[in-house]
Amino acid sequence: MSAPLLAPHRSVRRFKPDPVPQEVLLAILAEAQRAPTDATAQMYSLVRITDRDLRLAISQACGGVPPMESAPEFFLVCADLYRLRALLHLEGLPFGNFPHIGLHFATVDASLVAQRLMDAAEAAGLGVCPIGAIVNGIAAIPGLCHLPPLVMPLFGVCVGYPDEDPPLRPRLPLSLVLHENTYRIPDAEELRPAATFMNPITRSGSWLSVLARYFAAGGVMEEREAGLYATLQQQGFSTR
Amino acid sequence: MSAPLLAPHRSVRRFKPDPVPQEVLLAILAEAQRAPTDATAQMYSLVRITDRDLRLAISQACGGVPPMESAPEFFLVCADLYRLRALLHLEGLPFGNFPHIGLHFATVDASLVAQRLMDAAEAAGLGVCPIGAIVNGIAAIPGLCHLPPLVMPLFGVCVGYPDEDPPLRPRLPLSLVLHENTYRIPDAEELRPAATFMNPITRSGSWLSVLARYFAAGGVMEEREAGLYATLQQQGFSTR
Repeated sequence: MSAPLLAPHRSVRRFKPDPVPQEVLLAILAEAQRAPTDATAQMYSLVRITDRDLRLAISQACGGVPPMESAPEFFLVCADLYRLRALLHLEGLPFGNFPHIGLHFATVDASLVAQRLMDAAEAAGLGVCPIGAIVNGIAAIPGLCHLPPLVMPLFGVCVGYPDEDPPLRPRLPLSLVLHENTYRIPDAEELRPAATFMNPITRSGSWLSVLARYFAAGGVMEEREAGLYATLQQQGFSTR
Repeated sequence: MSAPLLAPHRSVRRFKPDPVPQEVLLAILAEAQRAPTDATAQMYSLVRITDRDLRLAISQACGGVPPMESAPEFFLVCADLYRLRALLHLEGLPFGNFPHIGLHFATVDASLVAQRLMDAAEAAGLGVCPIGAIVNGIAAIPGLCHLPPLVMPLFGVCVGYPDEDPPLRPRLPLSLVLHENTYRIPDAEELRPAATFMNPITRSGSWLSVLARYFAAGGVMEEREAGLYATLQQQGFSTR
């Protein structure tokens, strides 16, 4: 196991202005398409945002996301059951009623495609940065990108040649994320040093503070809840 | 762009009995852990099922899934907010209330990790097969694997040395899954030949029949809806 298996991943937020050549773009998209897909159904779409005004409008709807504005390429990664429904309609068949199952499989399908796109892009010497913050402006995105029903934006992916060389950032110890047969509940004595180890992943130097800002009561994730829920409803991923 | 960017993906369902060496296993897990993670939070767990009786029990709960039973390695890919809540409790902070947001980000995080694991495994000469069918037996899995609240099984991944050499299977034309700026709605004249092109992805030779069996009214996905919904509720991913 001498050679690394994949190009090292670190999210890149500053890109050179150089465009991604068409043949490189097509090569990473071909790799993305080869991701496994449940029931062969390919329940995703990628919306490549090339219009600079549209890119800016999406970024502003999300509160301003600099890498989204500066990256040569930006893809909106979407769960997509619309195309599947249209395929069944070719046969005159009614689409089933499975809101949780539909969102589940389409989110997984779309995420697998996006990760394979990122792995391929990094193998081609490009840098990538996924953008979870599109959820901040999610209610505006279907209108801006004319997304039909059953198409739900999930996150974004920036791609371009890196104009920075950030260090590899830490991850939790494997023992906390890998379990054998049954889930092993960690205690505080195991979590505290792991949290300290994670500090360099943040700019502030305190990982627990970042987690608190996002995930504690009153934090960013609670603020995002209503917008995501409303957009799921609006796009037909009804939860009942 | 002469060299391929990633090892070619095709799902492998027949594996040699040879175990995956420990150093190879650790290498692919290290790659998996490097997947990007929203808000640095790593909202996933992998449960490696090494106990043969447990593996069989999970497979049987799902209706019998041969590759899950025969693969040298099988990982249950889980959305995990339990560990995150435990980390906030270290600081005495209450976890926020964001059921849709929590499931959204944790499903994406876990899927990115799983795809990077699969890309790394294939780079190491292994074969992989994701198992969406764990949803068939999803209600039984938390008990079998002692999953605490806020841990939700999403799908499985089989890993091992291939004992078959399946062909690369087709994917939809790029023009149907890639949009530029706005979603382009395809018409029947575009969908029909694409569906014909997809036929070799199936054993039966009719892709639309497979889609119908899964996604039409009365199909497999509708059957799966109640179990997934109940397990989301049970595991604390309440949808209200």
